[in-house]
Amino acid sequence: MAYFDSASSAPLHPVAHQALQAALDEGWADPARLYREGRRARLLLDAAREAAAEAVGCRPDELVFTPSGTYAVHAGVAGARAARRRVGGHVVVSAVEHSSVLHAGHARVPEGDGPAVTEVPVDRTGAVSPETYAAALRADTALACLQSANHEVGTVQPVAAVAEACRAAGVPLLVDAAQSLGWGPVDGAWSLLTASAHKWGGPAGVGLLAVRKGVRFAPQGPVDERESGRVPGFENLPAIVAAAASLRAVRAEADDEAARLRTLVDRIRARVPELVPDVEVVGDPVLRLPHLVTFSCLYVDGETLLHALDEADFSVSSGSSCTSGTLTPSHVLRAMGVLSEGNVRVSLPSGTAEAEVDRFLSVLPGLVAGVRERLGAPVGPLARTGAAADAPSLVVDALGKLCPIPVIELAKVIGDVPVGGTVTVLSDDEAARLDIPAWCEMRGHEYGGRQGTAYLVRRLV
Amino acid sequence: MAYFDSASSAPLHPVAHQALQAALDEGWADPARLYREGRRARLLLDAAREAAAEAVGCRPDELVFTPSGTYAVHAGVAGARAARRRVGGHVVVSAVEHSSVLHAGHARVPEGDGPAVTEVPVDRTGAVSPETYAAALRADTALACLQSANHEVGTVQPVAAVAEACRAAGVPLLVDAAQSLGWGPVDGAWSLLTASAHKWGGPAGVGLLAVRKGVRFAPQGPVDERESGRVPGFENLPAIVAAAASLRAVRAEADDEAARLRTLVDRIRARVPELVPDVEVVGDPVLRLPHLVTFSCLYVDGETLLHALDEADFSVSSGSSCTSGTLTPSHVLRAMGVLSEGNVRVSLPSGTAEAEVDRFLSVLPGLVAGVRERLGAPVGPLARTGAAADAPSLVVDALGKLCPIPVIELAKVIGDVPVGGTVTVLSDDEAARLDIPAWCEMRGHEYGGRQGTAYLVRRLV
Repeated sequence: MAYFDSASSAPLHPVAHQALQAALDEGWADPARLYREGRRARLLLDAAREAAAEAVGCRPDELVFTPSGTYAVHAGVAGARAARRRVGGHVVVSAVEHSSVLHAGHARVPEGDGPAVTEVPVDRTGAVSPETYAAALRADTALACLQSANHEVGTVQPVAAVAEACRAAGVPLLVDAAQSLGWGPVDGAWSLLTASAHKWGGPAGVGLLAVRKGVRFAPQGPVDERESGRVPGFENLPAIVAAAASLRAVRAEADDEAARLRTLVDRIRARVPELVPDVEVVGDPVLRLPHLVTFSCLYVDGETLLHALDEADFSVSSGSSCTSGTLTPSHVLRAMGVLSEGNVRVSLPSGTAEAEVDRFLSVLPGLVAGVRERLGAPVGPLARTGAAADAPSLVVDALGKLCPIPVIELAKVIGDVPVGGTVTVLSDDEAARLDIPAWCEMRGHEYGGRQGTAYLVRRLV
Repeated sequence: MAYFDSASSAPLHPVAHQALQAALDEGWADPARLYREGRRARLLLDAAREAAAEAVGCRPDELVFTPSGTYAVHAGVAGARAARRRVGGHVVVSAVEHSSVLHAGHARVPEGDGPAVTEVPVDRTGAVSPETYAAALRADTALACLQSANHEVGTVQPVAAVAEACRAAGVPLLVDAAQSLGWGPVDGAWSLLTASAHKWGGPAGVGLLAVRKGVRFAPQGPVDERESGRVPGFENLPAIVAAAASLRAVRAEADDEAARLRTLVDRIRARVPELVPDVEVVGDPVLRLPHLVTFSCLYVDGETLLHALDEADFSVSSGSSCTSGTLTPSHVLRAMGVLSEGNVRVSLPSGTAEAEVDRFLSVLPGLVAGVRERLGAPVGPLARTGAAADAPSLVVDALGKLCPIPVIELAKVIGDVPVGGTVTVLSDDEAARLDIPAWCEMRGHEYGGRQGTAYLVRRLV
């Protein structure tokens, strides 16, 4: 059984397990109380805060524990934005932030209308350019947000350069470090930082929110005296202790394990396109998280491929539509302008055995081929239907059909029109907006744009 | 070592410990994922929801898990109120609700101005009257809140009658069941219910929010697809599993343990006034939680008494001022109009040994006497200073002195004025507002009211 989805949630680190165990016995009382059980709980809480702050690279009194990474993001965005209400309500985010950041950015503010949000575009690797990001900062920008590394494709963002631009503009920068904090601290002069313990092998139920001294912060919603008045409710102490202990433990192993996993991911990045035809490996090949790689397989239904991998004992994630109860492909892949069909994200937990990666590489080609065969996908770049009409233009009606059918139908007939001829694909599937242009890019054809449900493609090769 | 503060946080129940252990191994993955680890997590989550819903007395799809009881209250109040925005912003609460309910009730709403909040007064036992509560409901009342039982004095509230009044007025009722859910379900036609797992021996990090079908609810703040769109962020699954398992376990023992603890609390209620002079036992003697009793000791500094009890290995809580970093006495004692000085809350965890209660009763009188002696408290109801001037009125300057000194100074000189004479106490201590009238009530003198920092007392006996 190979669990290759640590970017969703990592299995509990043994140190987290031990620390939780100990803290359940020692840390169940209220740390606000003055009797011995309370004082003991307070000592555990203080020690956990010091350890976590050291790993984050901030002062203990700059860091609070939250019930989740999502909570940390929501509270951080709301508190930082409200504190700069007078400046304005504008928020800058990258287009590939985690949904919690986008949700918080688009949230309605207490004044009534939601703030304007500028989503800074990314390049085909998923990275923002510091110049483009800087140009999005305005006089009325209350807050800027940028992830340290992308959760779907692993691309590392230029946080230090963006932080410098934000500093110059006088705008606080919130960094969502959920995917990277286990690997190392975030460089650059960030103002706020958020993270989530279960991403580094800590327990669920613990997030981190760091707010640098001097950064204005106005907690929103009802508060009490806990966590510096920033996070109300009884502290989840045993889990906090386990989170801090495991962060320290994974950091101690981080450099060696990062180097080892980087090699395994490089192997996947190199071998998948050799073993599987019509695959696009996405994300930056170098400036990336050590353990994560994403690729998309043309003419493949992501959900079916995930099921096939699950049956072969591989647990992976996907940004394809239809794979998580939604018909919309991942907003990250969409912002990158890359193929979304047959999308697979592999994120290796610490300790992943090399043999498991090799087994993945050995079963993947057959599974992809099986899915394609069941879908009747074309073989080779210029398969012809045999019903060639030599017509300069064709229309393919794929209305009501879901990804990857519209692209398969397109690929089947492209050989039936001459070079320079056109195929119009009729599709009402959301994924087609991303996948038809991406297919054209991969195949070297010209994408002529979309009018309503009609996509125009011109054969070039 | 006797921990007598289960109303703050109960030690982890053995079943919670075991369940947490098992769920850490089985339930660390994302229950939203379709691979085997995710499906296993989903099964655990569904089973926990069913068990918790059964204990609450609602349908599983009416119940969501939150990161704490406080979170459940904040989310419940905000969501229920927002859904009835058109009706109005008025909220009714009892004056003795937990601070999380009061904070949520007084919170600023997105429209701008905070809603009007009516705090329904309580009688000297801490209970609301259903008639008074009903009279507070208005045409623009969006939400009513009432605890099932009070967390500081244990008094059980007339929830069923108040729920009936709310139903008749078309106002949803939110019941904060934090202190009682381990003992049994809440009777009556409530609309929303909140609770907190660490109060019944479950782990920290888990609250419950039940919203009856048909009750309008509009979650506030950014949401995602988790917990029916009501609680964003990764579920704290192992703790949820442990919370549900332990709730089921404590319920199985509840009737027997309630009967046993009720007897022990009755013993404290009866013996403390016999063993310690000048004590007021507060809260309803019959309609009360089985495990909780609160009393206040005249002429005693609550913080000093707590320290003395801690040194004698008893961990208890207090609603006195100065005992939790605040100079304000408990709002509950204030609303009841009872003495707050020298306040001690004893809340027995399940399994408390009879011998520990007897040891508490044997050490308490000496500890209280010691504190009184150090403070120079008067002995007997009409101690005289010996400097009797037979003046019809005296002024005691206690400005700058904290509880219980102003009351001690008053008690020292009351014998120096004749019956019908007056003592004016000058005090700027917040606690004096509560404790001087309460002392008059206990001693049979007439409280003549307050003007600024001057309290007028007329000797009657």
